[in-house]
Amino acid sequence: MDETSENRQAAHAYVDTAERRDWEAFAALLAEDVVYEMPQTRERIRGKQLFLRFNMEYPGDWHLKVRRIVADGRHAAAWLDTRVGDERQDACVWFEFSDDGLIRRVTDFWPEPYDPPAGREHLVERW
Amino acid sequence: MDETSENRQAAHAYVDTAERRDWEAFAALLAEDVVYEMPQTRERIRGKQLFLRFNMEYPGDWHLKVRRIVADGRHAAAWLDTRVGDERQDACVWFEFSDDGLIRRVTDFWPEPYDPPAGREHLVERW
Repeated sequence: MDETSENRQAAHAYVDTAERRDWEAFAALLAEDVVYEMPQTRERIRGKQLFLRFNMEYPGDWHLKVRRIVADGRHAAAWLDTRVGDERQDACVWFEFSDDGLIRRVTDFWPEPYDPPAGREHLVERW
Repeated sequence: MDETSENRQAAHAYVDTAERRDWEAFAALLAEDVVYEMPQTRERIRGKQLFLRFNMEYPGDWHLKVRRIVADGRHAAAWLDTRVGDERQDACVWFEFSDDGLIRRVTDFWPEPYDPPAGREHLVERW
């Protein structure tokens, strides 16, 4: 398998193992010095142990489903359909891989619903 | 050039031509029946002409810069650093290409800053 295929598979495994709460398999995908960032809150977590705890302690009965994963050499991006109870939200996750195919950087975006600005009603339909 | 390389280049060109307001070159990247969606506002725009107008009419002195582009066969994703005046915001853009390398679907996410929830201060640093 080439680098892109391996990293595409690792991005899928990241989502699948988190969804299954298989923390051993999840941890095996991560570099020791993985850095996790959430630019919207300007929060950063350093290192596999803290990042594992963050995921294990994340509150609520959350669920993750892949909408799309795109991999390209040492980078990948995932568009997720996430749910906590009846609340659903899209998420965008950016991955960076090390030479040996471990995840060394994860950047998460959690875009929330908002009201469309006025002035473009002549161009758009709503769903 | 293979399909992934061509589509990676087209995703870059999408950002660059929009930034330069080169609407002719921008339009040349788009399929006639391109569909543009903003899931956060549940807005949809159908067709090249309306989507062009949406971009040409978009208010403010906006600027786009690529932070990362990931291409994979007929799909790509872009992480953008956008600015309107002094306001900056990240954006995540998902692309779908047609057989002939034209953009047939664009899905935009505009994640806004928010305050971090309490309870994870022991795991994170702020920046």
